[in-house]
Amino acid sequence: MKLWDKGFSTDKKIDHFTVGNDRELDLVLAKYDVIASKAHAKMLGRIGLLTSEETQALCAELDQISKSIEEGKFIIEDSFEDMHSKIEYVLTEKLGDTGKKIHTARSRNDQVLVAMQLYLKNELSEIKEMTQSLFHLLLELADHHKEVLLPGYTHLQIAMPSSFGLWFSAYAESLVDDLYFIEAAYKVADQNPLGSAAGYGSSFPIDRSFTTMEMGFGTMKYNVVAAQMGRGKVEKATAFGISSIAATLSKMAMDICLYMSQNFNFISFPDELTTGSSIMPHKKNPDVFELVRGRCNKLQAVPNQLILITNNLPSGYHRDLQLVKEVIVPAIQDLKACLEILTFSLKEVKVNKSILEDPKYDYLFSVDTLNELVLGGMPFRDAYKKMGMEINEGNFTPKRDIKHIHEGSLGNLCLEEIRKKMK
Amino acid sequence: MKLWDKGFSTDKKIDHFTVGNDRELDLVLAKYDVIASKAHAKMLGRIGLLTSEETQALCAELDQISKSIEEGKFIIEDSFEDMHSKIEYVLTEKLGDTGKKIHTARSRNDQVLVAMQLYLKNELSEIKEMTQSLFHLLLELADHHKEVLLPGYTHLQIAMPSSFGLWFSAYAESLVDDLYFIEAAYKVADQNPLGSAAGYGSSFPIDRSFTTMEMGFGTMKYNVVAAQMGRGKVEKATAFGISSIAATLSKMAMDICLYMSQNFNFISFPDELTTGSSIMPHKKNPDVFELVRGRCNKLQAVPNQLILITNNLPSGYHRDLQLVKEVIVPAIQDLKACLEILTFSLKEVKVNKSILEDPKYDYLFSVDTLNELVLGGMPFRDAYKKMGMEINEGNFTPKRDIKHIHEGSLGNLCLEEIRKKMK
Amino acid sequence: MKLWDKGFSTDKKIDHFTVGNDRELDLVLAKYDVIASKAHAKMLGRIGLLTSEETQALCAELDQISKSIEEGKFIIEDSFEDMHSKIEYVLTEKLGDTGKKIHTARSRNDQVLVAMQLYLKNELSEIKEMTQSLFHLLLELADHHKEVLLPGYTHLQIAMPSSFGLWFSAYAESLVDDLYFIEAAYKVADQNPLGSAAGYGSSFPIDRSFTTMEMGFGTMKYNVVAAQMGRGKVEKATAFGISSIAATLSKMAMDICLYMSQNFNFISFPDELTTGSSIMPHKKNPDVFELVRGRCNKLQAVPNQLILITNNLPSGYHRDLQLVKEVIVPAIQDLKACLEILTFSLKEVKVNKSILEDPKYDYLFSVDTLNELVLGGMPFRDAYKKMGMEINEGNFTPKRDIKHIHEGSLGNLCLEEIRKKMK
Amino acid sequence: MKLWDKGFSTDKKIDHFTVGNDRELDLVLAKYDVIASKAHAKMLGRIGLLTSEETQALCAELDQISKSIEEGKFIIEDSFEDMHSKIEYVLTEKLGDTGKKIHTARSRNDQVLVAMQLYLKNELSEIKEMTQSLFHLLLELADHHKEVLLPGYTHLQIAMPSSFGLWFSAYAESLVDDLYFIEAAYKVADQNPLGSAAGYGSSFPIDRSFTTMEMGFGTMKYNVVAAQMGRGKVEKATAFGISSIAATLSKMAMDICLYMSQNFNFISFPDELTTGSSIMPHKKNPDVFELVRGRCNKLQAVPNQLILITNNLPSGYHRDLQLVKEVIVPAIQDLKACLEILTFSLKEVKVNKSILEDPKYDYLFSVDTLNELVLGGMPFRDAYKKMGMEINEGNFTPKRDIKHIHEGSLGNLCLEEIRKKMK
Repeated sequence: MKLWDKGFSTDKKIDHFTVGNDRELDLVLAKYDVIASKAHAKMLGRIGLLTSEETQALCAELDQISKSIEEGKFIIEDSFEDMHSKIEYVLTEKLGDTGKKIHTARSRNDQVLVAMQLYLKNELSEIKEMTQSLFHLLLELADHHKEVLLPGYTHLQIAMPSSFGLWFSAYAESLVDDLYFIEAAYKVADQNPLGSAAGYGSSFPIDRSFTTMEMGFGTMKYNVVAAQMGRGKVEKATAFGISSIAATLSKMAMDICLYMSQNFNFISFPDELTTGSSIMPHKKNPDVFELVRGRCNKLQAVPNQLILITNNLPSGYHRDLQLVKEVIVPAIQDLKACLEILTFSLKEVKVNKSILEDPKYDYLFSVDTLNELVLGGMPFRDAYKKMGMEINEGNFTPKRDIKHIHEGSLGNLCLEEIRKKMK
Repeated sequence: MKLWDKGFSTDKKIDHFTVGNDRELDLVLAKYDVIASKAHAKMLGRIGLLTSEETQALCAELDQISKSIEEGKFIIEDSFEDMHSKIEYVLTEKLGDTGKKIHTARSRNDQVLVAMQLYLKNELSEIKEMTQSLFHLLLELADHHKEVLLPGYTHLQIAMPSSFGLWFSAYAESLVDDLYFIEAAYKVADQNPLGSAAGYGSSFPIDRSFTTMEMGFGTMKYNVVAAQMGRGKVEKATAFGISSIAATLSKMAMDICLYMSQNFNFISFPDELTTGSSIMPHKKNPDVFELVRGRCNKLQAVPNQLILITNNLPSGYHRDLQLVKEVIVPAIQDLKACLEILTFSLKEVKVNKSILEDPKYDYLFSVDTLNELVLGGMPFRDAYKKMGMEINEGNFTPKRDIKHIHEGSLGNLCLEEIRKKMK
Repeated sequence: MKLWDKGFSTDKKIDHFTVGNDRELDLVLAKYDVIASKAHAKMLGRIGLLTSEETQALCAELDQISKSIEEGKFIIEDSFEDMHSKIEYVLTEKLGDTGKKIHTARSRNDQVLVAMQLYLKNELSEIKEMTQSLFHLLLELADHHKEVLLPGYTHLQIAMPSSFGLWFSAYAESLVDDLYFIEAAYKVADQNPLGSAAGYGSSFPIDRSFTTMEMGFGTMKYNVVAAQMGRGKVEKATAFGISSIAATLSKMAMDICLYMSQNFNFISFPDELTTGSSIMPHKKNPDVFELVRGRCNKLQAVPNQLILITNNLPSGYHRDLQLVKEVIVPAIQDLKACLEILTFSLKEVKVNKSILEDPKYDYLFSVDTLNELVLGGMPFRDAYKKMGMEINEGNFTPKRDIKHIHEGSLGNLCLEEIRKKMK
Repeated sequence: MKLWDKGFSTDKKIDHFTVGNDRELDLVLAKYDVIASKAHAKMLGRIGLLTSEETQALCAELDQISKSIEEGKFIIEDSFEDMHSKIEYVLTEKLGDTGKKIHTARSRNDQVLVAMQLYLKNELSEIKEMTQSLFHLLLELADHHKEVLLPGYTHLQIAMPSSFGLWFSAYAESLVDDLYFIEAAYKVADQNPLGSAAGYGSSFPIDRSFTTMEMGFGTMKYNVVAAQMGRGKVEKATAFGISSIAATLSKMAMDICLYMSQNFNFISFPDELTTGSSIMPHKKNPDVFELVRGRCNKLQAVPNQLILITNNLPSGYHRDLQLVKEVIVPAIQDLKACLEILTFSLKEVKVNKSILEDPKYDYLFSVDTLNELVLGGMPFRDAYKKMGMEINEGNFTPKRDIKHIHEGSLGNLCLEEIRKKMK
């Protein structure tokens, strides 16, 4: 059964090509379609297009469907094009003509829109929470290891003293920025599009303020053409947020893979979190972190995928937009898996406490030594030349008792201030 | 002169390759380097690393440099690597040892960071204002032309009645969403990074709260490693905002190019805003709008450019980051040019008031006719089949006196509500 | 069972995260792993690491596995990490110690490499054939409809006369270029990587020339580090070819969607190839072509996905590379689906033969009229000004009996020459 | 002066926006416009549209212009829209009506197309030559340092013995693959588009075979619509080739930056090729290689930029296509600069000959030791378990006299075979 069935059978081949993997993706979205359908039914009751009996009957059946979704019993057979067809079919089977009336004053287009936006709101909230969990873990790790020094690199050259306190909390503070984009995406998603129908509204006297309130949207996407334009755009907004977080996680994973290399040996993880090699028995590979890096790099390609699908399409619905679903749904699942596994794994991180004992790190302290000369009154450029000469001549002896006290330095991490930013 | 000159001359070839077009880009940023240098000098005075005479002398010279930048007289000769070298050179030439002291407790890296962030804050504010100007123009145009009907398309097929009121204000409401990303980018930029030095802070007792306040930053990027990680990240944040607006402008430009085609003939512009053809004298080509579209599509590639430059770099500064400047500065200029020319041109748009007189648009009204049947009590699916049959048999007569009254529909544009969203 | 099992159980969570959807993808690749394993077994026999009985036993069992794959009976249970583990398990179960010996002198890494390259060679050949089928169909359509004129547009403005002969064969000739990239990708894939082991070769005296010949590779990727670097690179090479074809198909699909719009009405398709609307009974939507466009636009994002996954990874294997499989395999399937459905659908295209009767297309002939003036001796620029004036004053009358005779023009399509290019 | 000047002045603002930086880019292309103009003039003479005196006069003047371009004296003043206008202006100023006749039977569109393709052919040849120079240098370095061992990494973990012979020649053999894409791009560019005029051919009896031969094109893009579609497509084809090479250079640069880190210390470069730090006097930074990496990563974004500009544009010229010039011309210059500086710098590479003396690299030899057990008759999986146990218990002693003899291994680099592939 297709919503647009007009009596002639469409070629099977076409059918298969056009439906794609929509049914599978719709299992994720079905729950939200039911929420929106209930709100729509209640609204149709309010404006007199349904009797209160009809409204109640529809809501009761929708609750049943909702329950079957929750229990994992809802399925979309191949004879149905998508969840919308299946749900309408169930309602009609149970309620006859009343079931058919649910589609009054709406279109598949705004059904997809509203279900997608409800789904995204939920997922963006979850992503935010998971990011906050990682954030808090990173701050704890920073606090716990704040005394352990680490070489700081510039150009991958040994540069200046850093610390695990700095390193862990740097990624925490960086995540704060990423959430600004998750929040921006949430604002884009938090505008009720229902009522836009096929993208140009409806001649029915529908009450969009009611459905906005009923579904818990913060506001309405007023203009019906703008609401339709949200298709693809709200997913892209989400993808910007995903890409932001993914970049931070990927960078951290790159650091971890480097720091686990025997050439650095700064951190390690228990055997359960590493994997072996089929022909090199001594290896303890950071597969988890490589896959976090790889997945997060792939996630950074998502905005571009969505841009390519939607770009240069004139206004109004085009079937191309169906494809954004198959991009954004797995992307969200991937990001959540990365956040989860990273939080899970980082709890087990073991920090090497004697890194700086290796004499190759002596030069780390050159700048601090130089600064002492300056504090003693020598102009910076002159002190710099003097030090450079000492180093070139091999006469340099580091001064290891560093004291960095300014805000955000290794002696003054300002973890509480960073924590406040997240609120 | 190079900041890192140590006595031996670096090969010319290398010099040319590594400096690139940095000097040119630095002319845009120099003004912000001066602002940051003044704040830094004052702070050094406060913590006793400069005397108050030195501070005053430095501030006075920096004001002179600022004036020469404003007057377009500041130049960075080929003998200087960048603006930072040039400014320090001028200070030293005028003030001797005092000039050299400005570099105490900072690094070229955090100089670039802070100048870039001040620049981005300024540009993001300008982009916001220009977007708001376009927004208000679009709402005015929507109001002015709200009675003129337009075919609404889905799948590029004639679908349902739309209006210029809907069309213009759809793009306005869509711009509101885009600004959420500009605002997110602004928040990322609005955190003082000065004091991170080479990315690991400093042993000098600098007062970062003072420079934060002095330069008007909303807060500080506390963690110095996080501050350094901002390099590339704050530009990418800006690029997400740019990409968002660009997508909206590009889509509108696509509509305009289509609507100016003789096959649509919905809108036109005065001759001054169109261009001719070298061998087709009758053409009035929409070059301006094609270039807005093309430029805005190119701008949507900017986040990906920045991701590719910065991705998979471990933490800490790398020289690769220099290249983000040459991506983001022209991108900002391009977006502003597009916003300006589009606002300038749209003021002159001429709307065709008799579009729907063409009988090929009769089917636009089929849905409204169908809805009347439903309002008369027929179940939707039955009404749909009846109408389909009439159309197939050629018996369909449209009902042209459409009444769409719900929020956001063509009879109830909610322009005031949309205007409120922008605030 | 995992290849790298060392006695301690790896956390389930990690397992799930690291394996991902590899098992599913491996079902596509298993057939090629078997081919490579047979070649490897024979080679081990030749160099004396297996007895001839062992070699025969392994080959016979691998043939059994191959048969089960062909019959769709091969499955990779959750207890196996991938196809390689499963195949080795089957061999060991059947052949005991002999089964274990298959892994001598190779690594999972070069197993994946060689299976992937065999797979890509096969798929690239199929893509080439399917592209050639479409090419020949387009040339037939061009020939069949060569007399039917069409407006040629520039800037979406009516410009000059074109024809269906030109339009169809333009896409054919364009596909010739795309195949240059498919062929380049084929050359990259057609180099035997087997023997690179974990990416640094092996101390066993393996005979790579033998396996190269046995598997039908054109040459060998000699350097074992280069062979390993092929991981990700050969997929990206394929993706460039895919992206090329996809761009051509997408552009054609865009033309088709536009030409099917009632505002153009240049072509149509039987009802079986179009779809309806849930609330607009008169619509015949070009969903198939929109989805070809959308899918092909998504495919153009694939090179960038692969670049992001692989970029800035130092040499040597990283687990990130596992993720390229889940990008390239579906991309190949999608492109083939698009080629198939487009060839299938275009056979049914109906061409409107009376397009140019509409007077809005009169100006199409302005250039030809201008050229007559020039052929009569008037300098081009003067003729151009005269014509421009006539058009502005409304005095222009078109000269409709056009004669374009040069190579590649609408009167001389050179279809045979284009056909020769494909060979 | 504009080619399409029809008497009314176009608004300055529009002019500035539409011309952009075209004049600057045209200085690079002007030489090729002159070549094409000469071929066009001769052809017009052959078909009788110019007298032989006119043809000679035009050719002589075009030679003058060519000379002025070579001498760097050719300039495009702001009063001209582009090179085409300027050249035509010069011809008309010198030759009166004869000058005007050069534009007969062509359009600015096919002028740009043909000049771009001639330019790209030339640049692709240069890129190929420069890549071959680097290739040969890498093979020489491989040969020179073939005895020096290096740790081979997988997952950034110490894995197996590698060598500088393998490392240098791996990048050489990898470049062979990249040139397949340069060659594919060359084939796309090597098809004469001249005669397509505005994209639909011409009613003049032009002789395209003559101009094809005259300009040295391998063949003709027959179909005039296909020729026009080449705009953007030939640049994208070039960009695929650029992106391929860039990926290889970027990866090598990443390795170099890592290997120059004090944590690896595998290679170094003379001071002239490294740069210092403004506050860390001991640093010798790999800026050149970081900028090669960064530039090459940015270059990998170029295909996507071009795809975004051109995607979803229906067939026929659009002004958007002007923007591809400003993407492809600097990209070519950047790639050539990277190839040049990398070849220049690598000549000076200094290789650390005692890397493997560090005991942390002992495990490198575990696989070879394991293989000996296997060659002694133990099944692989059993040998693997035994070795794993020894390593876990700290009883492992490496066997350092490695012998890798198979094709492409560190003992048998097959440099000659690789060299042959390049031919």
